[in-house]
Amino acid sequence: MVAFMRQEEGLLNLIQKVFVSGKLRTKKMQRKRRYKTYMAPGSSNEKNTDDGQASKENFIHLCNPHLEKMKEDILYHFALGTGTHDFPSLFGDVKFVCVGGSPSRMKAFIAYIAEELGLGTPGCDYPNICAGTDRYAMYKVGPVLSVSHGMGIPSISIMLHELIKLLYHAKCSDITIIRIGTSGGIGLKPGSVVITRQSVDATFKPQLEQVVLGRTVIRSTNLDEQLAKDLMQCSKEIGQFNTVIGNTMCTLDFYEGQGRLDGAICLYDEEEKLQYLKNAYESGVRNIEMESSVFAAMCNLSGLKAAVVCVTLLNRLEGDQISSPHDVLVEYQKRPQKLVGYFIKKSLGKV
Amino acid sequence: MVAFMRQEEGLLNLIQKVFVSGKLRTKKMQRKRRYKTYMAPGSSNEKNTDDGQASKENFIHLCNPHLEKMKEDILYHFALGTGTHDFPSLFGDVKFVCVGGSPSRMKAFIAYIAEELGLGTPGCDYPNICAGTDRYAMYKVGPVLSVSHGMGIPSISIMLHELIKLLYHAKCSDITIIRIGTSGGIGLKPGSVVITRQSVDATFKPQLEQVVLGRTVIRSTNLDEQLAKDLMQCSKEIGQFNTVIGNTMCTLDFYEGQGRLDGAICLYDEEEKLQYLKNAYESGVRNIEMESSVFAAMCNLSGLKAAVVCVTLLNRLEGDQISSPHDVLVEYQKRPQKLVGYFIKKSLGKV
Repeated sequence: MVAFMRQEEGLLNLIQKVFVSGKLRTKKMQRKRRYKTYMAPGSSNEKNTDDGQASKENFIHLCNPHLEKMKEDILYHFALGTGTHDFPSLFGDVKFVCVGGSPSRMKAFIAYIAEELGLGTPGCDYPNICAGTDRYAMYKVGPVLSVSHGMGIPSISIMLHELIKLLYHAKCSDITIIRIGTSGGIGLKPGSVVITRQSVDATFKPQLEQVVLGRTVIRSTNLDEQLAKDLMQCSKEIGQFNTVIGNTMCTLDFYEGQGRLDGAICLYDEEEKLQYLKNAYESGVRNIEMESSVFAAMCNLSGLKAAVVCVTLLNRLEGDQISSPHDVLVEYQKRPQKLVGYFIKKSLGKV
Repeated sequence: MVAFMRQEEGLLNLIQKVFVSGKLRTKKMQRKRRYKTYMAPGSSNEKNTDDGQASKENFIHLCNPHLEKMKEDILYHFALGTGTHDFPSLFGDVKFVCVGGSPSRMKAFIAYIAEELGLGTPGCDYPNICAGTDRYAMYKVGPVLSVSHGMGIPSISIMLHELIKLLYHAKCSDITIIRIGTSGGIGLKPGSVVITRQSVDATFKPQLEQVVLGRTVIRSTNLDEQLAKDLMQCSKEIGQFNTVIGNTMCTLDFYEGQGRLDGAICLYDEEEKLQYLKNAYESGVRNIEMESSVFAAMCNLSGLKAAVVCVTLLNRLEGDQISSPHDVLVEYQKRPQKLVGYFIKKSLGKV
């Protein structure tokens, strides 16, 4: 058991090294990558500005030595596989990945971004690349991939494992990945958009606890600072809705886990709930959702430049139920799409 | 802080009392309930066998005193609400609830059970009761409700909070709820079906850790022993596939959390993985999935008679990838449906 623990400590050190080297590389590459993405990644212009050394591109960092030994990789929950699909040809030009909980919202996003980028025809139907399963839905137009991830850390975690492998097998480089979602706000007017500074857990710590081979592993949940600032600048340029940069609390449950009084089980009172939410606010939390921590941790480890952009559907200091009219909620849900759509357009020099 | 902790301890005691009283009531009612369900619940016969005392029916136990104060309850992720839908009329006759991850599988199940119970017409399309959202899908025929729950503890937890409230608002009684799902097996031939004795966590303990208002709460994950035995008996009577009663390990992740070597992140070797899976087997674990612990914990607290029936898609001692041909996997996935379908038929006196 002691030997096992020592070995685990070695692994944790390795994770730390991978994480640190990932960060350093990200920092070093940041200026160049921003330049590159603003020069329309994937276009011939980009190739000309590059000095020809492939090593300067920011490829996916796969933290798994076992994968190289596999002849074929089946991405079971996508119903895709390297033996049946040509990943470089299907996905090699992807530069922006947008992920969100709801399949229909991610389908709406691909239609929206296609129109914004002048790549689609109005009314065109975009096929679901993962049509062989109903676990996730995936759509693509030009350099943009849009993928649903369901609700909660485990659901997005399965999707991210397979997505990161997909991008790796496709030999993608210089990827920006953004989660566009919904959340409960704290102390914000409903409809406000929060760009996540740090994803924190239910005790307000910027970390994710995972259990690997029965032992707890702690991972960092930092997100790309510069990307958050770039997104904030985009929101100012759009000028259509309130946007803030703040911490996002990521919980394992929507009802008790977020201090709601309206679940099937609730064994605390309103005063305790409000105290908890106020403590969260004081620690810098501006919204609560259920996926950002593992999203940040896995993107960190894989060297992906990542951001989380969520609209707040209600102010949790004022209630628990999401009771705004349907059309108001639909408009709110379009705000992260608008913001990220504008960011992508700007990155591609189309604003 | 100390005061807060003391108050929390009081809440934990309350949870414990609720849990114990729920169990006691379950035990006391067990004989009567079995009798009742075998007498075709919801039919006029049932009314005649009842002694007329409503208190003897086993209603949903709602562990939330706040709900009674609410004028309207919006079940946001079902797109249903007490202000817009007549729950007793829509769901009051439900006696069996079957839940599973995939929406299309739960749609297939309602068509299957309708035919088995002689309640459907071949080729009939069953409308999705939750058509106003794509978070979950829900179907109903006669006394059977079929609901999808997505993947992972958080996703099924949201669904269960709203489902338990739905059953409560509908004034349902004597409910049997069964999760029919897929899993990875340990030491079993692929295609074997596991009826869960206890749901255990990644350290093989029969418990669920939840974080409520920032503090960890531990809940029991026991399931109904008699229901597991009844299901095992049904499998013997069908005689079509191998079925065992065993412990089910419930994890927060499909790749690292289950010791797979084929995720985007893996920092252990095959030997450590196999040792972990062998330790799991020795502790009584026969399969691994991602929802059973919170399912058991929440059903326990709500006084619902619950079981988990999962087919194993592979033997994890032999590999990680789910690589069986599509038609083989489709047939495997029908096995829990067949078993639970037979159980429902038998319960309704139709075998």
